[in-house]
Amino acid sequence: MLKTNMLDVLKKARRMPQVILPKDAAMIVAYTGVSPGWNVIDAGTGSGWLAMFLANIVKPGKVVSYERNEIFAKNVVKIIKDFNIDNLKVINKDVLRAKPRGRFDLATLDLKNAENLVPKIFKLLNDNGYVAVYSPHIEQVKRVRKVIEKLGFVGPVTIENIVREWKVTDDFTHPVPSGVLHTGFLTVAKKAGIAKSGLRR
Amino acid sequence: MLKTNMLDVLKKARRMPQVILPKDAAMIVAYTGVSPGWNVIDAGTGSGWLAMFLANIVKPGKVVSYERNEIFAKNVVKIIKDFNIDNLKVINKDVLRAKPRGRFDLATLDLKNAENLVPKIFKLLNDNGYVAVYSPHIEQVKRVRKVIEKLGFVGPVTIENIVREWKVTDDFTHPVPSGVLHTGFLTVAKKAGIAKSGLRR
Amino acid sequence: MLKTNMLDVLKKARRMPQVILPKDAAMIVAYTGVSPGWNVIDAGTGSGWLAMFLANIVKPGKVVSYERNEIFAKNVVKIIKDFNIDNLKVINKDVLRAKPRGRFDLATLDLKNAENLVPKIFKLLNDNGYVAVYSPHIEQVKRVRKVIEKLGFVGPVTIENIVREWKVTDDFTHPVPSGVLHTGFLTVAKKAGIAKSGLRR
Amino acid sequence: MLKTNMLDVLKKARRMPQVILPKDAAMIVAYTGVSPGWNVIDAGTGSGWLAMFLANIVKPGKVVSYERNEIFAKNVVKIIKDFNIDNLKVINKDVLRAKPRGRFDLATLDLKNAENLVPKIFKLLNDNGYVAVYSPHIEQVKRVRKVIEKLGFVGPVTIENIVREWKVTDDFTHPVPSGVLHTGFLTVAKKAGIAKSGLRR
Repeated sequence: MLKTNMLDVLKKARRMPQVILPKDAAMIVAYTGVSPGWNVIDAGTGSGWLAMFLANIVKPGKVVSYERNEIFAKNVVKIIKDFNIDNLKVINKDVLRAKPRGRFDLATLDLKNAENLVPKIFKLLNDNGYVAVYSPHIEQVKRVRKVIEKLGFVGPVTIENIVREWKVTDDFTHPVPSGVLHTGFLTVAKKAGIAKSGLRR
Repeated sequence: MLKTNMLDVLKKARRMPQVILPKDAAMIVAYTGVSPGWNVIDAGTGSGWLAMFLANIVKPGKVVSYERNEIFAKNVVKIIKDFNIDNLKVINKDVLRAKPRGRFDLATLDLKNAENLVPKIFKLLNDNGYVAVYSPHIEQVKRVRKVIEKLGFVGPVTIENIVREWKVTDDFTHPVPSGVLHTGFLTVAKKAGIAKSGLRR
Repeated sequence: MLKTNMLDVLKKARRMPQVILPKDAAMIVAYTGVSPGWNVIDAGTGSGWLAMFLANIVKPGKVVSYERNEIFAKNVVKIIKDFNIDNLKVINKDVLRAKPRGRFDLATLDLKNAENLVPKIFKLLNDNGYVAVYSPHIEQVKRVRKVIEKLGFVGPVTIENIVREWKVTDDFTHPVPSGVLHTGFLTVAKKAGIAKSGLRR
Repeated sequence: MLKTNMLDVLKKARRMPQVILPKDAAMIVAYTGVSPGWNVIDAGTGSGWLAMFLANIVKPGKVVSYERNEIFAKNVVKIIKDFNIDNLKVINKDVLRAKPRGRFDLATLDLKNAENLVPKIFKLLNDNGYVAVYSPHIEQVKRVRKVIEKLGFVGPVTIENIVREWKVTDDFTHPVPSGVLHTGFLTVAKKAGIAKSGLRR
């Protein structure tokens, strides 16, 4: 039987700060292979959409998401209740000062100065766990990549994706003339396990 | 604890017919919201990668995948065993002649003449279920869209996505000069429930 | 000494029917190598921008441009006078019924049913002359390519181009978030000279 | 009568250092409106293709091109003779140490550390003249934009373009699967005339 569709939740979540688009959330799936059972740490929560999208996929795994803005955090807590999302916890605290418990298989960062958070994330990740950082600006990408490489993450990759919608008719088929040309760059890297030196591709 | 990563399965699956890329499989997630508990029908199996990718996400839901080529089917059956994927069943039969049991929440079609299969899929889908068709050529897109609209699916959308990888260094940051410019077009549509007329966006 | 810049003329020309964009006019230059001394036939004139752009480049060569809509034609005739463009002639007639004098080195077609005009263009072109057809829809591309290949034009190529503008600052450099995703497809082919069979690339 | 086509010259020029592609040279035409009669300064010459492409368009205007590598310079001098390009002069000297005579309507820069050259170019340009800088890396773009803005050039714009070729057939029409995803970024700006303050867009 068809369960609640996260795309409907997205519509609710849209009222808050700018959300990461489905196309970009999908790239996190494509490049990390995030799966049921994974535990995820997410910051900042923002509109909460990415956290909910991931909670939906990792179930019975859990997502903990940090947001220092109280209004944003409360908004997501309400949506979580409305949709009964029981494997997502939103914490209204600056993640830099927080002390998350346990270890994680994936960390998703969508906040300013994400590079400052990466060393802490490195410690919180399980071996073979992934960090995925979403950066609107190229300077952010450079700072994040620098920290990631210094810490010894393996296989770092930075991508951007352009999605084009097509209008399809009998005789006038063409891409929609205008739309989104840029959202952000996604950087993904893996925390090497013991056989670290041999894993670099 | 980190579970088996589907990206590792992909590497195994690559030996067979051309696989749908992670970027395109992920777009199916982005545009259908496929979630744990969904039941999926997939055809043709091909290398099996999309079927395994979806099995991983929908668990405890199930995926049944049809493939008429015996060699392809056997190859995937072996991978399923190797990776203990217990919610995916591959059937070595032409899906057009098959009689799948039950109803489905998502149908993924990646085969020639997918348009011939769409009416059958329409009957097999639950209300609010999705069909997602992957078409390398624009003529296939047109035929599929025609059938989809005739049958009364709602909200059909056709997209393509271009992913560009960046080389990031201190002083020579630039997109990788050459790579993939086209894989296929993805068409997604929803089977309307009772309140059909009101759902069109 | 700097001469009148065609980009200023463009601004004037913008008041009329949708103009081909500079990026697309530039592709005609890139794929035909249009040069000073070439004679050009253009249809339909539309806003006149492409005709003026080409007149500027081919000087002392000439451009003759056909437009059946009287208001459009008169508009361009006025711009030609305002800017003293003496090597461009606009003729207010349906090009299909016209009898252009002389031979041409380049034909640029930006009108509906361009495929009907291609056989006539073939006869009007010099050996090694080019036809360049601008088509918003993929069905138009297919019809044009069919005629072009049947007539024995060589090296037909169809391209589209996406231009992305960047916002460049000290610390927030990124592509402009939204903009043009599609204008049209450009098809270019060459009329083979005597050594036709050897020219195919 | 059809004149020599610059695209044939390109084939000859290809043996030397990496050339700017026709798609990018054409963007310079689109964004500067370079026209017959303009005088151009170009550096470095490299394979000479951009210099020849511009010489072809600006005739009877002239192009002077600087190249400090003797082998490259000699190679282009030979091509110039072979094709009788009489309005292009290649000078085998580091442009930073050269003293070009006269004023120019367009400067095209395709060399490392182009930013160091921009102040000199500013003095050499006529009012309303353009500078166009081609930069493979984003860090180069940033340095160039900084100097351009400091000097008071107006309307600076940085673009990149992606060209996709299509395979067009009766029933299997699709973009060519792989190809060029990046060549370089093009930055164009105008030297303001007297009414400078009012020209900024």
